[in-house]
Amino acid sequence: MSINRFGHLLTMTTWGESHGPAIGAVVDGCPPGLQLNEKWIEQWIAKRRPGTSAQVSARREPDRVQILSGVFEGRTTGTPISLMIENVDARPADYEGLPPRLGHADQAYENKYGIRDPRGGGRASARETAARVAAGAVARLVIPEVTIEAGLVEMGGEADSSRWSAMIEAAKSAGDSLGGIVECVASGVPAGWGAPVYAKLDAELAAACMGINAVKGVEIGEGFAAGRRKGSENVEGMRVSGIDGGISTGNPIVLRVAFKPTSSFGIKGRHDPCVATRGAPVVEAMVALVLADHKLLHRGQCGGQ
Amino acid sequence: MSINRFGHLLTMTTWGESHGPAIGAVVDGCPPGLQLNEKWIEQWIAKRRPGTSAQVSARREPDRVQILSGVFEGRTTGTPISLMIENVDARPADYEGLPPRLGHADQAYENKYGIRDPRGGGRASARETAARVAAGAVARLVIPEVTIEAGLVEMGGEADSSRWSAMIEAAKSAGDSLGGIVECVASGVPAGWGAPVYAKLDAELAAACMGINAVKGVEIGEGFAAGRRKGSENVEGMRVSGIDGGISTGNPIVLRVAFKPTSSFGIKGRHDPCVATRGAPVVEAMVALVLADHKLLHRGQCGGQ
Amino acid sequence: MSINRFGHLLTMTTWGESHGPAIGAVVDGCPPGLQLNEKWIEQWIAKRRPGTSAQVSARREPDRVQILSGVFEGRTTGTPISLMIENVDARPADYEGLPPRLGHADQAYENKYGIRDPRGGGRASARETAARVAAGAVARLVIPEVTIEAGLVEMGGEADSSRWSAMIEAAKSAGDSLGGIVECVASGVPAGWGAPVYAKLDAELAAACMGINAVKGVEIGEGFAAGRRKGSENVEGMRVSGIDGGISTGNPIVLRVAFKPTSSFGIKGRHDPCVATRGAPVVEAMVALVLADHKLLHRGQCGGQ
Amino acid sequence: MSINRFGHLLTMTTWGESHGPAIGAVVDGCPPGLQLNEKWIEQWIAKRRPGTSAQVSARREPDRVQILSGVFEGRTTGTPISLMIENVDARPADYEGLPPRLGHADQAYENKYGIRDPRGGGRASARETAARVAAGAVARLVIPEVTIEAGLVEMGGEADSSRWSAMIEAAKSAGDSLGGIVECVASGVPAGWGAPVYAKLDAELAAACMGINAVKGVEIGEGFAAGRRKGSENVEGMRVSGIDGGISTGNPIVLRVAFKPTSSFGIKGRHDPCVATRGAPVVEAMVALVLADHKLLHRGQCGGQ
Repeated sequence: MSINRFGHLLTMTTWGESHGPAIGAVVDGCPPGLQLNEKWIEQWIAKRRPGTSAQVSARREPDRVQILSGVFEGRTTGTPISLMIENVDARPADYEGLPPRLGHADQAYENKYGIRDPRGGGRASARETAARVAAGAVARLVIPEVTIEAGLVEMGGEADSSRWSAMIEAAKSAGDSLGGIVECVASGVPAGWGAPVYAKLDAELAAACMGINAVKGVEIGEGFAAGRRKGSENVEGMRVSGIDGGISTGNPIVLRVAFKPTSSFGIKGRHDPCVATRGAPVVEAMVALVLADHKLLHRGQCGGQ
Repeated sequence: MSINRFGHLLTMTTWGESHGPAIGAVVDGCPPGLQLNEKWIEQWIAKRRPGTSAQVSARREPDRVQILSGVFEGRTTGTPISLMIENVDARPADYEGLPPRLGHADQAYENKYGIRDPRGGGRASARETAARVAAGAVARLVIPEVTIEAGLVEMGGEADSSRWSAMIEAAKSAGDSLGGIVECVASGVPAGWGAPVYAKLDAELAAACMGINAVKGVEIGEGFAAGRRKGSENVEGMRVSGIDGGISTGNPIVLRVAFKPTSSFGIKGRHDPCVATRGAPVVEAMVALVLADHKLLHRGQCGGQ
Repeated sequence: MSINRFGHLLTMTTWGESHGPAIGAVVDGCPPGLQLNEKWIEQWIAKRRPGTSAQVSARREPDRVQILSGVFEGRTTGTPISLMIENVDARPADYEGLPPRLGHADQAYENKYGIRDPRGGGRASARETAARVAAGAVARLVIPEVTIEAGLVEMGGEADSSRWSAMIEAAKSAGDSLGGIVECVASGVPAGWGAPVYAKLDAELAAACMGINAVKGVEIGEGFAAGRRKGSENVEGMRVSGIDGGISTGNPIVLRVAFKPTSSFGIKGRHDPCVATRGAPVVEAMVALVLADHKLLHRGQCGGQ
Repeated sequence: MSINRFGHLLTMTTWGESHGPAIGAVVDGCPPGLQLNEKWIEQWIAKRRPGTSAQVSARREPDRVQILSGVFEGRTTGTPISLMIENVDARPADYEGLPPRLGHADQAYENKYGIRDPRGGGRASARETAARVAAGAVARLVIPEVTIEAGLVEMGGEADSSRWSAMIEAAKSAGDSLGGIVECVASGVPAGWGAPVYAKLDAELAAACMGINAVKGVEIGEGFAAGRRKGSENVEGMRVSGIDGGISTGNPIVLRVAFKPTSSFGIKGRHDPCVATRGAPVVEAMVALVLADHKLLHRGQCGGQ
């Protein structure tokens, strides 16, 4: 098993530590002939880039993407696409001599590997998600028929977005952090993508999102609310999941992802008061990767488009 | 990608339709020398067998398991373990001429494959989960140090279990159904199992559980509640997830799974008023498969036990 | 990794020991709507069945195939196809108390697993190949445009087939065995199947054939002869491989497989003087599985047919 | 399926075109705590580097390796190891306007993808093998108990190595090329590595070597010679394969690989008269990757070392 690979037929393999020289992704299995350039990828990464607002980490990264392979004269060739993003504003010194930080997986890595990269969480840092977003931008090209939009619907239990910036400011000054819930809707997915039993579209979306740092819960469509009602109850206005038996129905796919508050309040390092803010573009990227992968799988097994 | 395979190093491949001659599972990668016999497997399947109480489907299945390979003189040999369960009480006639049933994935299969087995949901039937439970019983042998227990904690929004049987009776007589929430706790998992990034223990558990019929949501530890609080809030008494950065911490792993009410109220066929009742043993089986797989993966990469 | 699984998008997982109750295969990822019945599969198995001539083992097996899932009203449904063949003429007693037999992998299994099934080689027996041929018969349905034909071209160093039966008789009476070389030609493969670098069509064919019992060598097209000539040498009449850079060219694909003589001369049990005789249908089956898998992969990534 | 990934538990994913900015490999699943630095890798790459002798291509590449992740203070951390080698001496202009070159997979890529990178064979160039050798150098650290040595045993049909340089000179001046046969011996492999049926050690070695550019045949131990003899024939002095039933026996593993003469005689570009010369280090690398992978797999399933 490739621990750092995601996907079946369209795969991404990511690498890189938060404070190493660079991070990157290799996207394999991408269909040939798609128009791809750095600008396309960078516009998506920009959405999650730290240092762009008062709400997020003070780390400054230009996040310039280099396409090192798989593209010739602006089009994908069908060979692996190697993407690299240099870590310009890495500050390993900030972390020197730091003991394992609670809630940062430092101890977990030490338990598993008996060794760890202490520099800003290494592989477990949110920095790694930049590579996912870059790969997700490639995946979007594979599914032009699909629109994917994710956004915060709750912050610290508050659903009224007009109150969020005040909450963020308060959290920053108090050295506190806030949890959040992101909702993602994928429209334009034709009926028939996905697979029964162990590659169900909803199961793969759940894995993709639960694998994002700080995520503690994933629900599809009605989600946990469905676990609390009767079958006969009036379901009017209830969100459908867009997935039945693990296969897309043609309706929009709706999922919700819960991000815990970052554990790093009151300690050294540069962090986001609400990681969910930057989680939305990562959710979009992971959803794009799952859907693009299943489009190819469906075409492969069923000859469908 | 093998659509009906689950796992990396310890894998199960299941097959069979609800009303075909049999269902089964092939468990591959199981370590050699483990004591295994039919009785061990059947005791776990008995937990989910229909027809055992007023709460579940009227279908009567003895669920006798045949071990067709991989075991010699009561011990696993390291070769694939083929398990078969015959469908004794199949009644395909009950479903003849039935149109695709809403919420039963019938239409989904037709959309994807252009063909479907109309007999009781075919592959999408809860019947398939018997094969998962059988494979899960084998997985339990790989992780004797771990105890896995799942049970209903809510039914139709009611957390007081003393009221459940009355609710079930009412639902049966009204031809109604009830959603439920299952909680699963895995104790004894040593620190270090799981893998960062794309094979995170929590991500794999989420996929394993979201892939169970009727499941609409999965949460780890604090789950969605974490998405609604501040980092500074007193976390005393709050359940930890037992997983940090995708790797087990040594604490009990806690997850909750939401089952929607079955959609089959008021139509032909034999069904459970609350599928969550039978969902618990399936959740246990899937958790056992994920943990056993990661024990072997950890031993493989890190030489750990 | 599933040790007993073969293929990427179209996969087979086989199970069963030579003298257990049955052997079988689960074929997953097969496209829906293909006409499939037991007779179709049995005609291919018949080609490799022992007891059909003086040349092969005295074991008598009717090799009746049961299709346990994945087919409805004579057509594949897209769900896993479970195939089972009962071991009717198993004679475990013949092998009781036998020490590990040289060249039968008995010692190898003991080394690896610390335990083995002593009955007729268990999993390592040629009996297992019946399951591969059954799965290969399904794969043939996926590639109707392709014709695959394999046959002996050398036996014990003799290329003149008119002398073979005499050699076999002599070997039988002397308790001796003979090596052989099988050539397989796949015609009708369109240009473009296969994949560069690590899923090259020739690499996958090599693995598929080298994994057959008693095989010690595989060559594509000119094979080892190419390693002994100059680039400028007249290549007229030289067989092309039908594969360039790991991708099919549209020309017939030609490969040759070397089977060693069975090691079982002069010991207890029932065996073939020349296993290569029965190797040809197995080579055909493995080639069919590789080509069908790559047809689906090509369609998936490139949308090609 | 990841087309450009190799391995099960220890995997490498390679990327890069011959005349793009760089090539590279991501090695995933490498155990933690192994000493690794650029010098170790470069010494192995140096063995296959062009421009080092009269026998090989005139292309001059320093082949400096950059380790971009997975190593901290000189030791592997268990996270993915990203290796990059810049293409310094790329000369895309040399290939501008070139039609697809016979025997260079140019046409094959065009057939498959409908587009190709015309610069020096792109992904199909021998240049890609530098990434494999780099990954192989990492794999060697995983199996310190094993010694792997490969070398030419025949060139253009000539087994007497004292005549080879003269043959090379003659071929260069005549614009001709020569085939060759490489033999590889792996000593120190303990009994028990490998897996029966579809992950047989010999099958995986065959795939690994057949996937190397220009390779047309692979044989294990006695190879094709075994296909031409009787079982009773005196096997004294005959090379054993070191593999029985797909599992290592503890004896040295011996395999032979046939490289065809490069097809590029008399055309534009810089090429090797005998690619087999540079093939030996690539064979060693692929063998190291297979053995390291199976060491981890064996430890995973059987707890063995």
